[in-house]
Amino acid sequence: MGIDPGLRNLGWGVIDVSGSRISHIANGVCHGTGEDLGDRLLALFDALTDVVARFAPDTAAVEQTFVNKDGAGTLKLGQARGIAMLVPARAGLSVGEYAPNTIKKTVVGVGHADKRQIDHMVRLQLPGVEIAGPDAADALAIALCHAHHARAGDRLAQAVGRVRA
Amino acid sequence: MGIDPGLRNLGWGVIDVSGSRISHIANGVCHGTGEDLGDRLLALFDALTDVVARFAPDTAAVEQTFVNKDGAGTLKLGQARGIAMLVPARAGLSVGEYAPNTIKKTVVGVGHADKRQIDHMVRLQLPGVEIAGPDAADALAIALCHAHHARAGDRLAQAVGRVRA
Repeated sequence: MGIDPGLRNLGWGVIDVSGSRISHIANGVCHGTGEDLGDRLLALFDALTDVVARFAPDTAAVEQTFVNKDGAGTLKLGQARGIAMLVPARAGLSVGEYAPNTIKKTVVGVGHADKRQIDHMVRLQLPGVEIAGPDAADALAIALCHAHHARAGDRLAQAVGRVRA
Repeated sequence: MGIDPGLRNLGWGVIDVSGSRISHIANGVCHGTGEDLGDRLLALFDALTDVVARFAPDTAAVEQTFVNKDGAGTLKLGQARGIAMLVPARAGLSVGEYAPNTIKKTVVGVGHADKRQIDHMVRLQLPGVEIAGPDAADALAIALCHAHHARAGDRLAQAVGRVRA
């Protein structure tokens, strides 16, 4: 499961990996609706908790945000990111973190891809999938990145095992 | 209840207000222990959820952080602040937010008080109280600020009621 944190729109995407085959399970956006900040964070928490319970993923990944906006924007994003990290951890999942450039490099092939390129490559790798919006596309990209790195980790562990055996 | 958010140390303080009398109930610090960020946020969430369940406060307040540190520090603080806002909201409490200057002005009398002055004034208003550390002292200051503003709000509501009656 990949999660793209945001206070207004928190994107999520679930994929299945068996061997070298990757398939789409579901994607969507949780909305931080409510009058005050506590309510908005609670709405995100409840909606994301439902998604995790519904799809019961094995592992999760969240974008490792770097900060290039104003301080107030960073603080808002941080609050949403706290929820995005907390909910899978509460469900007992390991939570991977990937820098935006790593996600782009993995999914598109270059570190400075724009949103449209990410969207294009996600659709290419998960053909025919209806995507709930740009935040959900980003979340699927994070999930694809996590799948790729987990697989690379497995191959490395197997290789080390062979060397050690 | 006042909460001073922090990823490593999250201070909390509970006071009781009846009429013009303010008394101390408890204070402490929740620690964000764990290897990765998800675990640390989960530790904060669980510890603060326990505190809220134990003391069942009527209302909560969190410092409205302004950002004067580096972006990475702001993001970390934002993540902890997300938990600090979420937990009382989950328990159905209203969550007040106060700017640091408002808290200082209310508790110390000036907007640019330092930590020692806050600590001193908190001890003066809650005599004989054992305080679990500077984060807990800040949390008690936030609680005192919230009590003062809530009381001022009540008086205003009563005054408006009298004028309307």
